[in-house]
Formats: sequence, C-alpha cells, structure tokens
Amino acid sequence: MCQLLGMNCNTPTDICFSFEGFHTRGGLTDVHKDGWGIAFFEGPGCRVFLDVEPSAQSAVAKLVRHYPIHSRNVIAHIRKATQGRVALENTHPFQRELWGRYWIFAHNGNLGGNLKDFAPTLNGSFVPVGDTDSELAFCFLLQRLREEFGDAMPLRQPMFDFLAGITREIAAHGEFNFLLSNGNCLYAHCATKLAYLLRQAPFAVAHLKDQDVSVDFSEVTNPDDRVALIATLPLTDNEAWITMDPGTLMVFVDGLPAATARTA
Amino acid sequence: MCQLLGMNCNTPTDICFSFEGFHTRGGLTDVHKDGWGIAFFEGPGCRVFLDVEPSAQSAVAKLVRHYPIHSRNVIAHIRKATQGRVALENTHPFQRELWGRYWIFAHNGNLGGNLKDFAPTLNGSFVPVGDTDSELAFCFLLQRLREEFGDAMPLRQPMFDFLAGITREIAAHGEFNFLLSNGNCLYAHCATKLAYLLRQAPFAVAHLKDQDVSVDFSEVTNPDDRVALIATLPLTDNEAWITMDPGTLMVFVDGLPAATARTA
Repeated sequence: MCQLLGMNCNTPTDICFSFEGFHTRGGLTDVHKDGWGIAFFEGPGCRVFLDVEPSAQSAVAKLVRHYPIHSRNVIAHIRKATQGRVALENTHPFQRELWGRYWIFAHNGNLGGNLKDFAPTLNGSFVPVGDTDSELAFCFLLQRLREEFGDAMPLRQPMFDFLAGITREIAAHGEFNFLLSNGNCLYAHCATKLAYLLRQAPFAVAHLKDQDVSVDFSEVTNPDDRVALIATLPLTDNEAWITMDPGTLMVFVDGLPAATARTA
Repeated sequence: MCQLLGMNCNTPTDICFSFEGFHTRGGLTDVHKDGWGIAFFEGPGCRVFLDVEPSAQSAVAKLVRHYPIHSRNVIAHIRKATQGRVALENTHPFQRELWGRYWIFAHNGNLGGNLKDFAPTLNGSFVPVGDTDSELAFCFLLQRLREEFGDAMPLRQPMFDFLAGITREIAAHGEFNFLLSNGNCLYAHCATKLAYLLRQAPFAVAHLKDQDVSVDFSEVTNPDDRVALIATLPLTDNEAWITMDPGTLMVFVDGLPAATARTA
C-alpha cells in the first residue's frame, strides 16, 4: 500500500511537523520508495511538488520539510508502485482543472494491481497522462462531475452526494482509498485503511510516531485554529486518531467533518 | 515586461547554468519580483515549481538552482505584475492537460495591461483559475485546439499552422510573447521581444550576462547534444543569440528550429 496524508484547516497552516514524520515512510521507516508528491492550495492557487526519488532522500522533500507553506488544504502521497512504472507521470498527487478550480487527487490501492476490470469510457475532457488506474479513476470522476453538473460548480451537498455515488461505483473495482480537494474542502474515502485526527483547542504536545520529534501546539496556534489531519496510519502516538470505517466517504471543511456517506 | 526562458533539447539536459543567470532578474539585476515559476518535462510527466517570492530570494529557486533536473523541455517565467494581483494562481507558467499530455504556457505582455478587449467565449473545457489575461489566452488556445482537432493530437505541421492562426488572432489584442510546450516540442512566439540561441558542437565556454559565472560546455556535453535556449533577453554575453523578428512563431524540436510562421 501507498501512504496518504491530507490536511484541512480553518486557517492557513504549515504541515512541516506532520510531513517530518510522514516523509520518513518513503524509504526509511517504511518501504514506499517509488516517488512521492505533495500539493498545497494557497487560495485558489496550487503548488504540487513531485519527486521520483524516495521521500526520505529527496532534495525536494528537504525543501518541503524546511519551507513552511501555509495552506488550508494539503494532499501528500508516498508511492509503492504496484501498477504503472516508477515515473514522474505516475507520481501522485495528480492535478486537473474543472470549473476554474484546480483539483488534486491521490489514491492508495492495494498490492495486487489496484482497480480490476476498470475501463470506463472517457469522452476526452480529462485523459490520463501516465499509466496508473489511479489517474484514470481521477479523470473519470471529474468527467462524471462535469457531465452531471455542467459548467458551474454545484453546492457542497449535491456534489458530496454525487461523489459518494461515483466512489461507490469505482470502489466496486478494487481498493479505492483516496484524498481529493478543490481547495475549498477535502474529501477522504476509506476503502480499507484511513484515519483522521481533529487538532483544536486546548492544544497540547504532539509526538511523532515515526521519529522522536515533538511540537507543543499550544505555543504555535491560536485558540480558534482547527486542523483535520487524515492519514493511512496515525502520524502521532499520543493523540486521539479516529480510524475510519471501511466504506466511508467524508468531507472536511474548515478543519471539521462536514458530511459522511457509506460507500459499501 | 516579464521575463521568459525556454529550453528545448535533443537529450535531457539540466538548466542550472541558464537559470543561475535568469533567476537574478527577479529582484536583483532586474525589477521583476512578483513571483516566478519553472516547469520541467520529464518524459510525459511534468513538474512545475512556483513561488510568489522574488526569484532572487526564493527558497524554491534555490532548490532549482542546485538540483539538476534533466529535461528536454523547460519553460520559466519571472513576473512583473501588470494585470492580476500577485498571487499563486496568477503565477506563470500555467498547466493544463489536453489529449493526455500536459501543456505548459507562460506569457510576457506589456506594462499597460496585456490583452485589450480580449473576452473570448469559453465553453467550459478550460477555465482560468486566476485573474490574468495570460491564463485566459492559454485556456482559449487549448479550447480552440480541441475544437479543431477533436479527441486526438494532430501531426506537428497542422498543429503548428493552426497555432499560428490562433496566435495571430490573440496577438491582435496586445503584446503576446509566449512559450508553450506539450513536452514534445517548444513553441515560441515573439510579438515584441524574444531571442534564441542554438548551443551545439563544437561547444565552448559560455559566460552569463547577469553574473560573472562561466561554464565550459565542452566538458559537460556529448558531441551530439543540441540545446535551443529561448529568452526575452540573451542570457550570455559571448554566444550567438538570434533576435527573433516581431510577429514570428517558431517551434523547436530536438534542439533545432523546425518551423517558422509570420503572425503579423
């Protein structure tokens, strides 16, 4: 399995602490060493850093660890290639534009080859550049959104309901854990493995699971700050991570869960 | 005016030397300090590094200067904001996907506000995320390509001819110097100011114009290597830069000009 990390906040927040632990899973504390990537929304703008080097050794990861980018929506992925060769075009997260917003997507499938018998008909509006089922699923998902809602982005609830339906459809083909964001909110689908944490006042000391590093968040936050972290496996060992039930789609807005739907 | 830099090669080449000179134009040797960006194609994959910090001071630029990414097509841009506020979503180069290829675009307009009375009708297939005329022109250009050629990428010559037509149309609205690439080749349009250099055997010492830095390319190249560099202003002071005629579209393939068209 690959590793996913997402963050959704009510105020622009840097992800340096979480990424410090997460990046070591790419070749150091874990075996996912076939590239990695991270996308930061800053307003409607978006920056995606990608590297085919293992994140534990990557010069780009070093930059991301030490350069605090403040973002309300972040998606990161460390890859264990199961399908699609190790190449930049197969490195998550993927980016497309729909309705004048960037959309970012990262997928965590399984070791056996992700989505079986998944061969949707694409109409050409979104076409994969690489060879992964993950990018294909992302393109299909955006195509369906555009077909359903036309030229204008729908309100949050109808979009969430429709996304739950597409997710159900795609998840029938294989393990479809994913994170998706358009910069407004963050969608998280647990097919088999995903957990989340709500970090809010009263803030305390958090200690990384993958490294002996702690941060006292009471010293670096404001009382109103709210951060939701979503990850394949909990990143800290002294906070109240909630394991998502397999077959659950959630959407996080302003650092809080805003809706939940069953997908299996 | 902003500053453009492009590179097209027959073999993956790093742009560190050229970028060393170029990046100082963002806030040090020149006044373009409203953000910058650079896109590297690696096969069909593409990495875009963006920053709203002046390139002369940017941590991301520091990474790019010291991390040799080998690419056959590179587009970089340093921004002097004339229209559209300083924000990540207004930072060039812009990226979209068409025909299962990433497309990268950067534009250098003028100080008066770029494209006047340019208000094309968009059909929703490509929609700007930010406020610039540049991104609007890019979206319009991709929309027209898709309308003309449907779901499959055309051959090089019909695509070039069609691009020349669209370029003529858009350039009627204002200064439309641009660089465009789909990872196969690099299009360069000179509306008012653009120069190029063909660097090939016999290789010699090149000396930067913006800094006292030299490289002896005979020591770091193979005899068959060919590199075309395209820039708003020559980057070196001892090589044979060719000033493009205003109203000229060129396409570079494998480090050589492959076609030229008049656009004015």
